Amino acid sequence: MTTPVTNDYVRALDRQHVFHSWSIQGALNPLVIAGGEGCRLWDHDGMRYLDFSSQLVNTNIGHRHPKVIEAIKAQADSLCTVAPATANLMRGEAAKRILARAPAGFSKVFFTNAGADANENAMRMARQFTGRDKILSAYRSYHGSTGAAIVATGDPRRVPNEFARGHVHFFNPYLYRSEFHARDEAEECARALHHLRRVIECEGPAAIAAIILETIPGTAGVLVPPEGYLQGVRALCDEFGIVLIFDEVMAGFGRTGQWLALDNFGVAPDLITFAKGVNSGYVPAGGVMISQPIAEFFETRFFPGGLTYSGHPLAMAAIVATLDAMAEEGMVDNARRIGQELLSPGLQDLARRHALIGEVRGMGLFWAVEFVSDREHKTPLAAPVIAQMKAAFQARGLLTFTVENRLHVVPPCIVSPAEVNEALAILDEVIDDFSRRCA
Amino acid sequence: MTTPVTNDYVRALDRQHVFHSWSIQGALNPLVIAGGEGCRLWDHDGMRYLDFSSQLVNTNIGHRHPKVIEAIKAQADSLCTVAPATANLMRGEAAKRILARAPAGFSKVFFTNAGADANENAMRMARQFTGRDKILSAYRSYHGSTGAAIVATGDPRRVPNEFARGHVHFFNPYLYRSEFHARDEAEECARALHHLRRVIECEGPAAIAAIILETIPGTAGVLVPPEGYLQGVRALCDEFGIVLIFDEVMAGFGRTGQWLALDNFGVAPDLITFAKGVNSGYVPAGGVMISQPIAEFFETRFFPGGLTYSGHPLAMAAIVATLDAMAEEGMVDNARRIGQELLSPGLQDLARRHALIGEVRGMGLFWAVEFVSDREHKTPLAAPVIAQMKAAFQARGLLTFTVENRLHVVPPCIVSPAEVNEALAILDEVIDDFSRRCA
Ligand SMILES: Cc1ncc(COP(=O)(O)O)c(C=O)c1O
Ligand SMILES: Cc1ncc(COP(=O)(O)O)c(C=O)c1O
Repeated sequence: MTTPVTNDYVRALDRQHVFHSWSIQGALNPLVIAGGEGCRLWDHDGMRYLDFSSQLVNTNIGHRHPKVIEAIKAQADSLCTVAPATANLMRGEAAKRILARAPAGFSKVFFTNAGADANENAMRMARQFTGRDKILSAYRSYHGSTGAAIVATGDPRRVPNEFARGHVHFFNPYLYRSEFHARDEAEECARALHHLRRVIECEGPAAIAAIILETIPGTAGVLVPPEGYLQGVRALCDEFGIVLIFDEVMAGFGRTGQWLALDNFGVAPDLITFAKGVNSGYVPAGGVMISQPIAEFFETRFFPGGLTYSGHPLAMAAIVATLDAMAEEGMVDNARRIGQELLSPGLQDLARRHALIGEVRGMGLFWAVEFVSDREHKTPLAAPVIAQMKAAFQARGLLTFTVENRLHVVPPCIVSPAEVNEALAILDEVIDDFSRRCA
Repeated sequence: MTTPVTNDYVRALDRQHVFHSWSIQGALNPLVIAGGEGCRLWDHDGMRYLDFSSQLVNTNIGHRHPKVIEAIKAQADSLCTVAPATANLMRGEAAKRILARAPAGFSKVFFTNAGADANENAMRMARQFTGRDKILSAYRSYHGSTGAAIVATGDPRRVPNEFARGHVHFFNPYLYRSEFHARDEAEECARALHHLRRVIECEGPAAIAAIILETIPGTAGVLVPPEGYLQGVRALCDEFGIVLIFDEVMAGFGRTGQWLALDNFGVAPDLITFAKGVNSGYVPAGGVMISQPIAEFFETRFFPGGLTYSGHPLAMAAIVATLDAMAEEGMVDNARRIGQELLSPGLQDLARRHALIGEVRGMGLFWAVEFVSDREHKTPLAAPVIAQMKAAFQARGLLTFTVENRLHVVPPCIVSPAEVNEALAILDEVIDDFSRRCA
């Protein structure tokens, strides 16, 4: 190409040839992105954006981290891909670093390409290990889009995809819109655990292979579980011999201000799935961390699963460099500190001042702002208004992640105080504007 | 690390931390691979290998292709990852190049991370498009390891994973071990089509969303379909309003000496899935090519599927550079020519001279050598003997891909005449040795 690339060219090329996820193709008008660095992205025509979405909540180290780019280049110079049956240095080093962040008693990592296939394989391991059939998961959840992962998913995207069997859903805690008529966190927790026990009993404990749960459900609304809930789920799993899987695909690797979200709760599952933050998605990768008893089980039994790019060297090199950079540069601490000192108070302040906000909740750099048209009845703000709001943020240079009636505030873990203040100011201004329009 | 890396170090690290695909973990002794170039790979201790496996039949351009490495580095300097909802130059350019290799009437590409999720999404599209439920696929097939892909798979790895519903299997043609008591190709073809028609009728044509078929079943044994078979399947799909999906994950992008394997047969399906060869697996990527009527359908209807790394810029840059390099350097022609002039005659010659070989079949650089202990009864050579043979090839510096009683001869498309002769000599020597041992 000799003529300079423009937004129009890229958008036209996209609309002509590219089929998009989760959408009506004819209704698309995609935002053009040409490049990025840190928390900033830009297009071909000179517009710059502050990325408070971390794309799909994956670029925890921001864009174009120099150490990770260098590691990718060095690995490309040596070997991009190799069969999974081989042993490869970067694969071993990546597994070692990941296990160093797991709770005690985790001993192996199975690598996949992303989050969905991580969950597929965790569920497969649980079924093989227990010899049982059913997988329990939460209605408010997202676990990925492949065969079993999308049916384990509880959100409505499951419905047109119900071609897997052996999946049962339960209600997870969400005090703001309690399914249990609870008045406070303690009551929500107790009732949610009672409900889960009743589902287990009614489905037959001896038929249940696993409970899979996002440590903090993300897409479903950053639903931080009440104190004691995850302990209670762990106790139920122990009582009934059920494998506990924590899906840390979105919440893991710095997002909550801890290495893993489970570190906030002091509960260890039997399997942990991860993707996104483990290498910020620079090269597609995900996987399953496996605790000792399950790893042991497969020492002498065939594991019936696999994929061409399991432990892909280029992806592994990106993991090694990402986890090292996160540690060396204190990114997890930054996420915790900025969350506590700046983002949490800033969002709480917006909530106090804007009636359009029903609740803000979260931890670290993992926050949801729930918009309502009526605070008392908690009526979700209508989808078209949310879409307009997202467009207004974007017009002011702020990229956001919105789901249903919610804004998820999820900047990279390297975000600076100045960038948080810049984003808070844009949020304030736009919400203020919409408050007037909606009044 | 200051001490030099050794094979022992890498193997120990692997056995301590890495969980492998499709295996009994305690029985593993993985080959160590440190780097590679072209058709050669090497370990940390100075051993070099000639790669006639193309890893998992994916490195069609060989290892460390300079143009693709440069493209990956350039893209890494600009932007590694971006949300799939955006428009991105490399994504559009990759889709355009892929569609240029599709049959007439294909208009969109949906990108995934690999082959399994390509098939998941093709089956999803077919179910949405037809409003029907069942997916028909061949017993002799491999379609990937996620929820629905592994159950669409016909080979025995399906069995421990049967948690998807709506899948029905039929027998595909395989004259050497005919399921239809056929004596020649024409009879095998006619009877296989009759069998498929009967399965369709008995399952209820109005319930069948799609037939998914590897254009040339790969892992199942490089089962080149008899003349007229794919035309016959196309006609059945047309008669009953069934979507035809060709899985070109292994056979596509040069392997058969054509851009797509379907080019050998003059048949166009409705959806084509791809991965592996599209960028030789340098960065994980796969996808679905979508024909106009199905693309059209989703112009006004929601597509209920997606993934975080759909159209990942680094993977897309690798696709663009790979397809350009393949064209510029005539790799597809090389695969066809070397296959016709050297590999095919060479393997046929081995078959003539060694009674251990029951049949060789294939095209381009996609060949299977079927080992038998008894030619008349076609008794498959026992698995432990095949394993010893693979080890003997490896000890002589030849990396191979073996499945059941077969050796798949699948070098990169850039393979030279000298390398083919080198491999043929090693095959000859080892088979000769085993012929004496087995006699
Ligand atoms: C919690 C969780 N699990 C799994 C997934 C699926 O990951 P992927 O899109 O990489 O398949 C996601 C994606 O958003 C997620 O948030
Ligand atoms: C024909 C075919 N389809 C699908 C797949 C699955 O691809 P992946 O391992 O990338 O998921 C394979 C892998 O070997 C294959 O050969």
